[in-house]
Amino acid sequence: MNHLVVFAHPNPKSFCKGILDTVVKASEEKGASVRVRDLYDIGFDPVLRASDFEAFSNGAVPEDIAAEQEDVKWADAITFIYPVWWSSFPAMLKGYVDKVFSFGFAYGNVDGTIVGLLKGKKAFLFSTTGSPNEVYASNGMHNSMKQISDQGIFNFCGIDQVTHTFFGSVPYVDDATRKGYLAEVEKTVKDNLFS
Amino acid sequence: MNHLVVFAHPNPKSFCKGILDTVVKASEEKGASVRVRDLYDIGFDPVLRASDFEAFSNGAVPEDIAAEQEDVKWADAITFIYPVWWSSFPAMLKGYVDKVFSFGFAYGNVDGTIVGLLKGKKAFLFSTTGSPNEVYASNGMHNSMKQISDQGIFNFCGIDQVTHTFFGSVPYVDDATRKGYLAEVEKTVKDNLFS
Repeated sequence: MNHLVVFAHPNPKSFCKGILDTVVKASEEKGASVRVRDLYDIGFDPVLRASDFEAFSNGAVPEDIAAEQEDVKWADAITFIYPVWWSSFPAMLKGYVDKVFSFGFAYGNVDGTIVGLLKGKKAFLFSTTGSPNEVYASNGMHNSMKQISDQGIFNFCGIDQVTHTFFGSVPYVDDATRKGYLAEVEKTVKDNLFS
Repeated sequence: MNHLVVFAHPNPKSFCKGILDTVVKASEEKGASVRVRDLYDIGFDPVLRASDFEAFSNGAVPEDIAAEQEDVKWADAITFIYPVWWSSFPAMLKGYVDKVFSFGFAYGNVDGTIVGLLKGKKAFLFSTTGSPNEVYASNGMHNSMKQISDQGIFNFCGIDQVTHTFFGSVPYVDDATRKGYLAEVEKTVKDNLFS
């Protein structure tokens, strides 16, 4: 079981970093091999440029994209950990998807039909929000966010098993609640990584 | 009437560029002043960094963000033109929002309540997709995209009048259809910019 964990938070002291550490530990305790891509730390460039499109159209894959695709190819499970900014991914993570999940790699045209090319993998998303879960659950925002990321990205690429967990009010909850959140992260990974 | 147009497409020959030209021409014909921010062309850096948070927490605004905020402040109407990538904004445009629509500028805490600070402005979004409009209308994706951008960004900042137009199947439609799309852009701007 190879587990790729993609992390996108600019603050190494953030609660998201606590989620990252918990995901890595839980995975290793279950016997998985883990690779972490800390996008801020590695200075990932999230801009999909005209030159990238040009390379793709010539059948080439730009070096920085190819390196990330190697990890995606290697992975049996892919986890995204990020703070919800403006109801979606930080630009850093959005650009990772824009660039790495490219046509011909993550999805492609087979006999005139667009099909996902990442079948057989599973995905986890851990998202933190400032608003309480109750607000986003009742106004439909959780569903919209899930449709866009779980369905619009992972299902589209052929990944059917997607587990998406939201943690609400992160800046405002007490320590016990935060510990409860991390226990939920651990359980989610341990229960689902191999199942 | 001051009209800020934010454009995020890497290809200057794209159909989105045709939308941009049409929006500018229609606005000027109605007598508006127009400023265009072509994010790819100006090499905008879409990454909201730890150093930006640090500056904000010290009451300072990083120079590149302050420049964009001047234009937002100046504008009576704000238009986003972009291709839908993975059911949402390209990272370039997402990062513009992450950085420019900052706490204390686009929204803020007034007497313990979070309120939008861009009240009185109006917004337009023109989004192009590869899939047909019918698919995204029937599976709920249009609604999810609108909730995330129109409601999650513009309404949240106090902008109630949001006009969001999707153009489907853009790479596949014929020239007459494309001309019809541009006529719709012109009409949308002319009918709503001053109303």
